[in-house]
Amino acid sequence: MASDNYNKITSINFKELESIVGKEFISSDPEQLNKYGQDETEDLVFLADVVVKPQTVEQVSAIAKLCNGNKIPLTTRGAGTGLSGGALPIRGGVLMSMEKLNKIIEIDERNLQATVEPAVINYIFQDEVKKSGLFYPPDPASWGSCSLGGNIAHSSGGPKAVKYGTTRDYVLNLQVVLANGDVIWTGANTLKYSTGYNLTHLMIGSEGTLGIVTKIVFKLIPLPKHDLLMLIPFTSAEQACKAVGEVFRQGITPSAMEFMERDAIDWSIKYSGEPGFEIKPEWQALLLVEVDGNNMDVLMGDCEIISTVMQNNGCDEILFAESAEQKNALWKIRRKVGEAVKSNSVYKEEDTVVPRAELPALLKGVKDIGKKYGFKSVCYGHAGDGNLHVNIIKGDLSDEIWNKDLPKGITEIFELCKALGGTISGEHGIGLVQKNYLPIVFTSNHLDLMRGIKRIFDPNGILNPGKIFD
Amino acid sequence: MASDNYNKITSINFKELESIVGKEFISSDPEQLNKYGQDETEDLVFLADVVVKPQTVEQVSAIAKLCNGNKIPLTTRGAGTGLSGGALPIRGGVLMSMEKLNKIIEIDERNLQATVEPAVINYIFQDEVKKSGLFYPPDPASWGSCSLGGNIAHSSGGPKAVKYGTTRDYVLNLQVVLANGDVIWTGANTLKYSTGYNLTHLMIGSEGTLGIVTKIVFKLIPLPKHDLLMLIPFTSAEQACKAVGEVFRQGITPSAMEFMERDAIDWSIKYSGEPGFEIKPEWQALLLVEVDGNNMDVLMGDCEIISTVMQNNGCDEILFAESAEQKNALWKIRRKVGEAVKSNSVYKEEDTVVPRAELPALLKGVKDIGKKYGFKSVCYGHAGDGNLHVNIIKGDLSDEIWNKDLPKGITEIFELCKALGGTISGEHGIGLVQKNYLPIVFTSNHLDLMRGIKRIFDPNGILNPGKIFD
Repeated sequence: MASDNYNKITSINFKELESIVGKEFISSDPEQLNKYGQDETEDLVFLADVVVKPQTVEQVSAIAKLCNGNKIPLTTRGAGTGLSGGALPIRGGVLMSMEKLNKIIEIDERNLQATVEPAVINYIFQDEVKKSGLFYPPDPASWGSCSLGGNIAHSSGGPKAVKYGTTRDYVLNLQVVLANGDVIWTGANTLKYSTGYNLTHLMIGSEGTLGIVTKIVFKLIPLPKHDLLMLIPFTSAEQACKAVGEVFRQGITPSAMEFMERDAIDWSIKYSGEPGFEIKPEWQALLLVEVDGNNMDVLMGDCEIISTVMQNNGCDEILFAESAEQKNALWKIRRKVGEAVKSNSVYKEEDTVVPRAELPALLKGVKDIGKKYGFKSVCYGHAGDGNLHVNIIKGDLSDEIWNKDLPKGITEIFELCKALGGTISGEHGIGLVQKNYLPIVFTSNHLDLMRGIKRIFDPNGILNPGKIFD
Repeated sequence: MASDNYNKITSINFKELESIVGKEFISSDPEQLNKYGQDETEDLVFLADVVVKPQTVEQVSAIAKLCNGNKIPLTTRGAGTGLSGGALPIRGGVLMSMEKLNKIIEIDERNLQATVEPAVINYIFQDEVKKSGLFYPPDPASWGSCSLGGNIAHSSGGPKAVKYGTTRDYVLNLQVVLANGDVIWTGANTLKYSTGYNLTHLMIGSEGTLGIVTKIVFKLIPLPKHDLLMLIPFTSAEQACKAVGEVFRQGITPSAMEFMERDAIDWSIKYSGEPGFEIKPEWQALLLVEVDGNNMDVLMGDCEIISTVMQNNGCDEILFAESAEQKNALWKIRRKVGEAVKSNSVYKEEDTVVPRAELPALLKGVKDIGKKYGFKSVCYGHAGDGNLHVNIIKGDLSDEIWNKDLPKGITEIFELCKALGGTISGEHGIGLVQKNYLPIVFTSNHLDLMRGIKRIFDPNGILNPGKIFD
């Protein structure tokens, strides 16, 4: 499957790789290649020539050196939960799964920092730092299975981003293996940094195309003691989006402000079971709003203000979660939407993002464009960030219409995002499936700068080739 | 003063520049060249061939194009308050002062965003957004005179960074004129962004060497309603630093946590007048601690916890500021330290930064290294960030010792920073005066990556030449 510009793995290469990682951590078994040839992006599969699982930084370095010297594609993979095809080995070659580099090396309570290897699962890390009274906020919907290294590849967000920021905001320093096998630390373990070009921030969101992250130093913050969760129903989805912006203008920053339109709710419930309360037929959208902090009286006050804003925007009766179980039940509806929608139909997921107050215009535009091209979409996401996930459903559409008209519709949606001051991905990345749309938001000289940076870091183009741009 | 690699301004170039910016916005008058040949870095002066003051983005673009085509150095200058020589036109050529691009274009209350030109003064911007109940936190000591464009050049911090982050954390999108005159927007006006390499973050902190910022879209946050300020005296500077770390481990994040050692206090008071309360002779250090938020009871509770931590670390009696005047008086002591120290002696300022809990070790190390080389230092800064400004005082040292031994001492201080997990600049940048020390913290392949990025953005090397690296 190697393209003309790259070399395939030879038996000599295989032997060399085997001597680097050890016999039990290399495979070219078709079943393994198939397993590691997929992520959570639609139904795409691409086969590498070989799967390797390094256990040390030195092994990662040796693998990079070998691939670089032989011009063999090297695609790094975290937990494979990506939604833009970023971890797919589309040019064949070596698929390097980081799964064995999964240690939490240190939780430094003196400095509120942690040093981890990239394959640590987000939720496991969150849970571990909580034991020290500390907090690592970024929480993608896939937090139970996604890896911190993958989170860095896309600067992943999650519901808490609205108050606490995305992965980017918690990375202090990265150990990176470069394409030629050299190992660098990109910055320092400090809260402030003004020491030359910021390679830490350049690496975050670069989707494994500039280097391979082998250690991460995260900033942690004190764990808030309390949180309150509200479910707020609306008979108009656009009105729900409008209410979102007004909450922030009241001086309140919720720790989550999630949006689901009717179809998203129905599909999620169908997929993961009844929520234990009535979903009235007239509800067209739900907001899930959380506040957190150390003082319960303050949080109650915040909830009152939020309730008033919501009522002024015509919400139906607000449901307060009264127990941990009820909170989990509400969060489950939101967290399972993505899986639910995908289990139902062939689909295409977009990760649109606009300035927060433009969300009603975006939602309306998405629906209008859908009508024009005859497709249905299910919308949900992080309304507080202006980040709307749009799942376009194939349903009964013919393959011909799906293949011919869908790209036109997506192009119009992305043009609308741009016109509203937004862009085409808030947290899922560009990877494979969005790269053709990049020229919508970037001029050619802008893209040339990105390509130039790629050449500096990876002159032979071996690192995750064919991602972000060709 | 142009180096061999660059061309000097010809009379033809001068005419062209004049036709771009207009007669009253260009000068080669020696007095003007002298004025624009300095910033706040020691007593350095470098003369450009010509000073220009563009009034539009189009003019900036035309100037860049002209300089690029003729290989003329182009140094962009904000308000000239930099402390690392970043705005000095060390290779001659064109000094472009951005001072006429000083409009606040929009404060967008719907989206909690603002769009500004780069020469807007930090304090003026803060003041203006406050009128809308909004907050732009980054507040360098020079906030009354520094420009927002300059803040972006160095990702400037300030006291509030400990809770609210540095300039970097508030920049959503930048309009940038590239070396060849092309104009791009680096990102989108969104809170989340995962759309290719993050050129916004690459531009921030690049000190005018990669492009010229002509518009900025900032994120704003709700303005906290209340703040409380405490002055906490210690008889041991190291004990004061130790107490700092413990506050955060109590789950409290103050909105300022400033440190001044005895000499800094004395010099500041000598420079700007008595503070209206007694500074006891046995005090060796002061902490200035602020908390802010919307609920006064919560803030009072935080202050109690902080007081307990401080008392457990042996502080003397804590002074609570009881009026806006008293708050201003306390802040004035801290904000004037830099100017005060500089007015007293020839000096060299370092901007060391380490993980917060390593601050006592850094302070002790700085003093030990000073003793070894025979120099005195005055230390103060943002203790909550681990960011210690070290002003090394020439005092009675001979020029010979100063010139010969000082670089050795600074090298040892920076080596100590690195060993403690820190780096050589937290918020002042590298500019001209720190560039020789960069190899202490970066390997040569790391520096090569930075140089490679520079070549991609500025192949002719015209933008602020000789800064960060040669």
